[in-house]
Amino acid sequence: MSAPVRAFVALGGNLGDRRARLEAALAGLSTTPGVRVAAVSAAYENPPVGGPPQPPYWNAVAELRTTRSAHELHARLHTLEAEAGRVRAVKDGPRTLDLDLLAFGDEVVARPDLRVPHPRALERAFVLAPWADVAPDAVVGGATVLTHAARLRARAPAAFDALVRAALLAVPGVAAPRRPVVLGDAAALAAWRAAVAGTVGFVPTMGALHEGHAALARRARAECDATLVSIFVNPTQFGPNEDFARYPRTLEADLDLLARVGVDAVYAPSVEDLYPTGSSTRVEVAGPSGGYEGAARPGHFSGVATVVAKLLLRARPDRAYFGRKDAQQVAVVRRLHRDLDLPGRVVVAPTVRDVDGLALSSRNRYLSADERARALALPRALGAARAAAAAGERRVSALVGVAGSVLAQAPGVVPSYVDVVDPDAFAPLAELGEAPALMVATVKVGTTRLLDNEWMTVGDGTGPA
Amino acid sequence: MSAPVRAFVALGGNLGDRRARLEAALAGLSTTPGVRVAAVSAAYENPPVGGPPQPPYWNAVAELRTTRSAHELHARLHTLEAEAGRVRAVKDGPRTLDLDLLAFGDEVVARPDLRVPHPRALERAFVLAPWADVAPDAVVGGATVLTHAARLRARAPAAFDALVRAALLAVPGVAAPRRPVVLGDAAALAAWRAAVAGTVGFVPTMGALHEGHAALARRARAECDATLVSIFVNPTQFGPNEDFARYPRTLEADLDLLARVGVDAVYAPSVEDLYPTGSSTRVEVAGPSGGYEGAARPGHFSGVATVVAKLLLRARPDRAYFGRKDAQQVAVVRRLHRDLDLPGRVVVAPTVRDVDGLALSSRNRYLSADERARALALPRALGAARAAAAAGERRVSALVGVAGSVLAQAPGVVPSYVDVVDPDAFAPLAELGEAPALMVATVKVGTTRLLDNEWMTVGDGTGPA
Repeated sequence: MSAPVRAFVALGGNLGDRRARLEAALAGLSTTPGVRVAAVSAAYENPPVGGPPQPPYWNAVAELRTTRSAHELHARLHTLEAEAGRVRAVKDGPRTLDLDLLAFGDEVVARPDLRVPHPRALERAFVLAPWADVAPDAVVGGATVLTHAARLRARAPAAFDALVRAALLAVPGVAAPRRPVVLGDAAALAAWRAAVAGTVGFVPTMGALHEGHAALARRARAECDATLVSIFVNPTQFGPNEDFARYPRTLEADLDLLARVGVDAVYAPSVEDLYPTGSSTRVEVAGPSGGYEGAARPGHFSGVATVVAKLLLRARPDRAYFGRKDAQQVAVVRRLHRDLDLPGRVVVAPTVRDVDGLALSSRNRYLSADERARALALPRALGAARAAAAAGERRVSALVGVAGSVLAQAPGVVPSYVDVVDPDAFAPLAELGEAPALMVATVKVGTTRLLDNEWMTVGDGTGPA
Repeated sequence: MSAPVRAFVALGGNLGDRRARLEAALAGLSTTPGVRVAAVSAAYENPPVGGPPQPPYWNAVAELRTTRSAHELHARLHTLEAEAGRVRAVKDGPRTLDLDLLAFGDEVVARPDLRVPHPRALERAFVLAPWADVAPDAVVGGATVLTHAARLRARAPAAFDALVRAALLAVPGVAAPRRPVVLGDAAALAAWRAAVAGTVGFVPTMGALHEGHAALARRARAECDATLVSIFVNPTQFGPNEDFARYPRTLEADLDLLARVGVDAVYAPSVEDLYPTGSSTRVEVAGPSGGYEGAARPGHFSGVATVVAKLLLRARPDRAYFGRKDAQQVAVVRRLHRDLDLPGRVVVAPTVRDVDGLALSSRNRYLSADERARALALPRALGAARAAAAAGERRVSALVGVAGSVLAQAPGVVPSYVDVVDPDAFAPLAELGEAPALMVATVKVGTTRLLDNEWMTVGDGTGPA
């Protein structure tokens, strides 16, 4: 017998008792020989699009483990639809139950009666939202479900905003993922920390979590006994004219995401808890803080260094995880960590990108659909420079020229800086050599600053890990 | 039977095999019923002063525990001198063995044949130096032996400089105090720290240790399982025109002092170990660093905060000990410790003063005898202000006036500032109230800055603990 395949099924319907219909379908699946329902999303209420006037739908996605074939599973979905009294009367008309096979491992099926992956699933908010609930990390068409969801949300936010989380569905034998415990202050954190017997992996964040954060948390979970995420929009790293007040705060959604990753605890302190009245200590990391973001955002890295020092000293992790996307922040944190002998190890994880190449960032949600399309010039510019380096170009001036000319062709994309630096000292390089070299670029699209970076390696297409 | 009394005996001689004579006397004492030799100093070679031309003396001090009376002990010393062939021929002439009873618990004896404490002991470098070796904390005439030694050394440094550490003496059953293990770098410190099972008490110092440091280390030793002292003249807390280069460095003497206190380990890093090439992190504590020493020494407290943060993070003590003498440093360290959640507890110990009232400081050794005498205006001024507060004066302006007028009468004493502050925020107060208030004063005597402070309490003579 072959190993079970991970498959995903979309469930929907808008006639009768919608919860009962969906739960009956899940029960039908879970009693099918060779099929196990591993997890199910919440049901979302979704206003109908097109077709005759009709009630809103409920939609959900189930994750299955199955030893049956894609075709057998597809046939079984049809049977369950028929058992639910499905009648195909009008195109896009109301229905009791709709079951679609979204993906079946990494199998690709293209037959008249069955196409896998489902050809329209990645264009539908009412599929991607529950799918990202249940399996954000599942890879479909070269990107994770969560990146597909992020991309679609950026393009069509209204479709996501129209969704209403309607109900938690029951499946025999399947529990909903447990949310992390929320630690509201230093005392709660200290008590939690003291109770952990093994190693602690820690991911400091400002919330508004996306798949980049989820990837850090998953890695922490894989490498440590207990996983802690902090969610704190740190006022001291924002300048007076920056977006502190409007920075997205999405704690409930963040906790749901972290529940799915299996994070144990979230430290979500108040400003007063982290900076009690009278606090007056600031940490300055002179070297890598200079230039680039440091020059553009005076005081920013001092705020970052201060809060990271405080968080590491409160959390005392064995490993702390940071994303490469904020490369200068990584350099500052590494320097800080060495200079003060802060607890644990600093682990840096690669940038997570959307399917179109845009680096994930909480600030991407500021972009209009048009701005988002134009923002793609940033990864394109870095890619062009990387290709030039791979083709043998060593001169930084030439590489910056390559990237700059891509950006110059993008209307509404205003470069702040493009340069190639030593990733530790964050000092500019004149030429590529043996040591790692990172092209860093920042642009403004509308009112939103976007950062990205890419390894530059002469004569081959791969950079340092 | 009464509890044993702690007694001290000076041993000296300049004829024959001096080591053998002294060790024979120690053996004679240790076999005397009711007498135990608890410890013995090194022997010091000491050029004879006065009398006929004669060889140099060896001098040492032994600590006894005895159930005999002072008189019985004195008689026994005479017997041992006679057994050594002592002949009293010429006044101040050469002798095989000289044994003097220096102190006998806190007993005072004034009889024609015996005076205790010994009337001239506190005026002789060749007695105070070995005595401070063996029992720096023993209190004689209201001050510790080490403070007496410091006072005499300040007055007559040549007498101390003439002494040569000659030999370690052997006493049956008495081991020399063991020097602390010296940890030269972060790796050695980390290994030592990891091997400690219980609590660690930590005293950060810049070396040139005096009884103030010894008091901190003794307290650490009393309160913790293992005691660690750091000795590091921190360049980042000295200004460009300050005394970094000439700051006294006395590692060998420091280790001897710490051996007598029973300190387990000394972390004595190089500058490169604490600030490796590329280090660029500085910690700034804004609030209590402003004004006073912060104004007089730009960057000083940032240097202090940085090195204290680094040391606490490397040493990870359960308790860290600081002296109240550097009151603003205490305020900065406490703020820093709270703000960054640094390890352990901060413990602040009272200022240790010389018998004449001058606060002990490594920088006192910069003072000439004349400067030292004039420097006493500083504790006198604080004492006068304290008395005025105790008598009911609440107005800080009046208290500062009282202190200022004492300082104004001292020639060659130039006040930098005199003020009364909240000891935590180090903000000036206008009037004494319920909260603790500290008068801080700094003067310059010659080229030496001297700091001191005193609690101000309305209507009574005692301040906060």
